[in-house]
Amino acid sequence: MKIAVDAMGGDFAPGVVIEGLVSALIDFPDYHYALVGNTPKVLFYLEKYGIAGDPRIELVHAPTVCEMSEPSAVSLRAKKDSSITVCAKLLKEKKVDAMVTPGHTGATVAATKVLVRTLPGVSRPGLGANMPSQKGRFLLMDAGADVDSKPENLVQFAVMGEIYAQYLFNNPRPRVGLLSVGGEDVKGNDLTKHTFHMLEKLPFNFVGNVEADAIFEGAADVLISDGFSGNVLLKSAEGLARSTIYWLKRVLTKNSFRTVWALMGRNAFVELKAFGSSDRIGGAPLLGINGICIIGHGGSSPEAVRNAIRVAGECVTFGLNDKIVAKIKEAEEILGPELNPTKN
Amino acid sequence: MKIAVDAMGGDFAPGVVIEGLVSALIDFPDYHYALVGNTPKVLFYLEKYGIAGDPRIELVHAPTVCEMSEPSAVSLRAKKDSSITVCAKLLKEKKVDAMVTPGHTGATVAATKVLVRTLPGVSRPGLGANMPSQKGRFLLMDAGADVDSKPENLVQFAVMGEIYAQYLFNNPRPRVGLLSVGGEDVKGNDLTKHTFHMLEKLPFNFVGNVEADAIFEGAADVLISDGFSGNVLLKSAEGLARSTIYWLKRVLTKNSFRTVWALMGRNAFVELKAFGSSDRIGGAPLLGINGICIIGHGGSSPEAVRNAIRVAGECVTFGLNDKIVAKIKEAEEILGPELNPTKN
Repeated sequence: MKIAVDAMGGDFAPGVVIEGLVSALIDFPDYHYALVGNTPKVLFYLEKYGIAGDPRIELVHAPTVCEMSEPSAVSLRAKKDSSITVCAKLLKEKKVDAMVTPGHTGATVAATKVLVRTLPGVSRPGLGANMPSQKGRFLLMDAGADVDSKPENLVQFAVMGEIYAQYLFNNPRPRVGLLSVGGEDVKGNDLTKHTFHMLEKLPFNFVGNVEADAIFEGAADVLISDGFSGNVLLKSAEGLARSTIYWLKRVLTKNSFRTVWALMGRNAFVELKAFGSSDRIGGAPLLGINGICIIGHGGSSPEAVRNAIRVAGECVTFGLNDKIVAKIKEAEEILGPELNPTKN
Repeated sequence: MKIAVDAMGGDFAPGVVIEGLVSALIDFPDYHYALVGNTPKVLFYLEKYGIAGDPRIELVHAPTVCEMSEPSAVSLRAKKDSSITVCAKLLKEKKVDAMVTPGHTGATVAATKVLVRTLPGVSRPGLGANMPSQKGRFLLMDAGADVDSKPENLVQFAVMGEIYAQYLFNNPRPRVGLLSVGGEDVKGNDLTKHTFHMLEKLPFNFVGNVEADAIFEGAADVLISDGFSGNVLLKSAEGLARSTIYWLKRVLTKNSFRTVWALMGRNAFVELKAFGSSDRIGGAPLLGINGICIIGHGGSSPEAVRNAIRVAGECVTFGLNDKIVAKIKEAEEILGPELNPTKN
């Protein structure tokens, strides 16, 4: 097992990434790594954390970085030697089994789409986001990789999301729902109505349309969406979580009684915040490319990096992509040309 | 000023509606009402609340009700005498200046679209939802009336949303943002990219693309969206608010110290909850139809009903629809056939 790790990705690179790698070296002693980034900088942190010279780490130089603020297309064209692009090249050439980056989602999608290409039968990759619900967690698929989806893309997302959820939730029959604006199958927009009738025919545990409020009550294990609406759902949840903390601070600092009271029970607020934390999740899989790619949050902690490495390794062992290819083939046999009208 | 009030709308009709009407009669003594519903039931509550025989109330019988669980199209076809349809007929025939329903949004959109029709230059109506942000409130437009929008629909939503926000926030230059998946103008899907370039040309205080997390930090006063993504945003906010309360209860009932502590500071939680309350908002305007129509939440309180009546009256006085028609005309002159490619 060899994993390419983008040492330069995220807001606190490379320090946080290498701190996460320290845990990974201890917890997963059999894994090997291609550590991609600016070698002098990377070496400084490897020495700082006492893992310089570990035989499991191969240093791969990548002189540039995709800044989080850069448009993805620019990064791909102008920075052919960025740490993300170099990771994608290693994945393409099968020099690694998986890649992990806590970096620029758009640039990673662009680089892997162009270099690694999609799996047989998959038109476009989708990003799976692991989100909290009252009953545990659900997988949102797609969370923003494909913003102009067609019904066949959504069906492919459903196949990929179901397989990933089988691994993630250790559940052979995860409930697959379609993000829509009404519970009945007659509701939705043109895209979801077409998708609904295709999903019905496939061997899923399909629970039908799911509204954006019901999903937080645990209405499905996998929520299928085009990347635009999916991203709206993901970002609104992030924004509302931050706003809730803001509003909570406002009411808690209103007077000194409140402040003392809040400090007395601060553990309760820490626990509340933990429901939304993504550190234990280990990043979002980019599903549908011809390799395993896990994308962490830009603000990833060392724990998040370590868990992204864990997930990447587990996906390889699980045989994620072979399972996706087999189930896509099965879906093609059932749906016929409907699933791949243009083979785009 | 005469307002049609759907007495049978919402989960607690007609009691809650008539309780709200009691406040409205006191607070807006000049308004007259067409109270639409099942007359015997309505009379019972009018007597209960001591306003039977008030000369400002005209009773209009409507034998059936659109149940909240019914599909909208069915309601419209099968129930030609439902309270919503009767309200829409009164509005169409100019027997009232405005209508208020705390009822079925889909059925109201369907009934007003067919009976009242849209304003000159408006292809499709949109629902404005008043939502909380860290800086106050913002108007989401469209929140779910039009789920298959084209760029011209979104531009019309922007015009209608801007005018309504001028009234709502008492601000002649509200910031208009476009819901998208990235801050830069090159980001988004086909729909938002086209819309962006049309909005740029119009005399708005246009702040460009706004992501779903930034809007909760107050990035815009009006957020333009197709009804599908807008509904996802609205519903995810409602769902997350409910889930936050659920998670809060879980951490607060974990042990008896926590429970006592939570009771000590329960006012703080009540205040926190108030940030999300919609009672003071007074419902969502259905903008773009040839009349004023305010739709309340199905779970409206009497205060919410009273405020929906207040908003309906204020919109009439403000001259909302004349202002919309004038600004749509101005937009048509600037954008030409781009704004009404098919005059659908």
